[in-house]
Amino acid sequence: MYEFDRHAQLSPGPDGVCTGDMSDLWNVGPVPNGGYLMALAAMSMATHCSHPDPLTITGHYLRPARAGHAQWHGSSVKRGGSFDNAQVSLMQDGTERCRFLGAYGTLDNIKGPSWQEAAPPDMPPPEACERLESPVTVNGRYEARFDAGCLGWLQGETGRPAEFRAWIRHVDERPCDLLSLLLFADALPPPVFARLGPLGWVPTVELTVHLRSKPAPGFVQCRFRTRYVTNGLLEADGELWDAEGKLVALSRQLALLRQ
Amino acid sequence: MYEFDRHAQLSPGPDGVCTGDMSDLWNVGPVPNGGYLMALAAMSMATHCSHPDPLTITGHYLRPARAGHAQWHGSSVKRGGSFDNAQVSLMQDGTERCRFLGAYGTLDNIKGPSWQEAAPPDMPPPEACERLESPVTVNGRYEARFDAGCLGWLQGETGRPAEFRAWIRHVDERPCDLLSLLLFADALPPPVFARLGPLGWVPTVELTVHLRSKPAPGFVQCRFRTRYVTNGLLEADGELWDAEGKLVALSRQLALLRQ
Repeated sequence: MYEFDRHAQLSPGPDGVCTGDMSDLWNVGPVPNGGYLMALAAMSMATHCSHPDPLTITGHYLRPARAGHAQWHGSSVKRGGSFDNAQVSLMQDGTERCRFLGAYGTLDNIKGPSWQEAAPPDMPPPEACERLESPVTVNGRYEARFDAGCLGWLQGETGRPAEFRAWIRHVDERPCDLLSLLLFADALPPPVFARLGPLGWVPTVELTVHLRSKPAPGFVQCRFRTRYVTNGLLEADGELWDAEGKLVALSRQLALLRQ
Repeated sequence: MYEFDRHAQLSPGPDGVCTGDMSDLWNVGPVPNGGYLMALAAMSMATHCSHPDPLTITGHYLRPARAGHAQWHGSSVKRGGSFDNAQVSLMQDGTERCRFLGAYGTLDNIKGPSWQEAAPPDMPPPEACERLESPVTVNGRYEARFDAGCLGWLQGETGRPAEFRAWIRHVDERPCDLLSLLLFADALPPPVFARLGPLGWVPTVELTVHLRSKPAPGFVQCRFRTRYVTNGLLEADGELWDAEGKLVALSRQLALLRQ
């Protein structure tokens, strides 16, 4: 069993509550990473849906969560038709830590035109990109290979665009699925580090991920960027493509730059 | 009293329920526009918050709403600290039509750095842009002046980028505020019309708007674009700037292209 699956065991119980233990291997400092929380939320919301695939999930990160025992209090919002909707609250010690709202569908049944007006970023292949040494625990869950062109901050260069480009996969080469995309949407350092250097804490207020397709085997290519910072409020926009160059997810978070 | 304010009268009642009548002047066909619903949702969620300003709101559009009597069943999700969070469901005839989740703060108290790595689109001033004749009722609520460079579809041209650039304000020149930005985030035709022509219905599954600043007086400048269409699933990404060139909102919706 791959490590994510080992660390994402949820038991559905009565009254729509799923329970499980969160591993501290997905922590950023003392708190679980927001992508890990969203992937678990997606699994728990799926138990309230007839459709299997998350299409869009929004999470509001209310208070710090912690590894260990967790209760996911979920409910159906709407069931039936092309989409289901569900909601879940992460509860620990009787206090709500996060709330998620999701829409689910069956990707194989959704029909319509396809095109892309933008392409994946032009960057070297994974073997020519650089791995980061990181003290952040959750970073050890992934093999992330960064375009060296966005790593000047590691040599103390500042003023570069707030953008990271990288290839990413599970460190144990777990095949990527939709849950992986939720993880990857919050797996890289904040893009503002590329501009300002490592700043410490950039807490997420809200994260929304749109999922378009199950990724083809191989690395997922991603670009995360921050273009607008307003009194410390910023967006981090992610685009994720699979190994065949197909867009598989879009993400956007609202975060806060605390200097 | 300006028309939006006349059509956005909510009465807070017991158990967190606000009631009010929705005007059919904000309709698209038989249903209220998604931005109008979000602005009303924002007003109702604010009654559950100590902070006044919506910072991010996500709406899931579950079933068609209709003009007329509406109940907004809201509740506090978290209250206190830098941010409050609230939730509301639009109920009509005992059926939930939309659900919204929002985070609120006090913009004047949020401190931190500011910068922009992208500029407003280069386009002619409002007086050199074009007004559209539109049969869609809600379009009459706004004065929208489009960059003629994205209006080729009106002459039957197809294959252009799926992008609209426009200046927008209330038709009665109501001063723009944060609620206006929620309205404007869903006020233009779907950007795919610029590429494919008027297609009919592009229903919104989910809409998220981030609000950064109260806009300066004058027109709001906006660009909406769709870059990725996957089996009919698409994003419409909006950037809204005020008359001083400051980014005031970002929006993204997940919608469905039904041809």
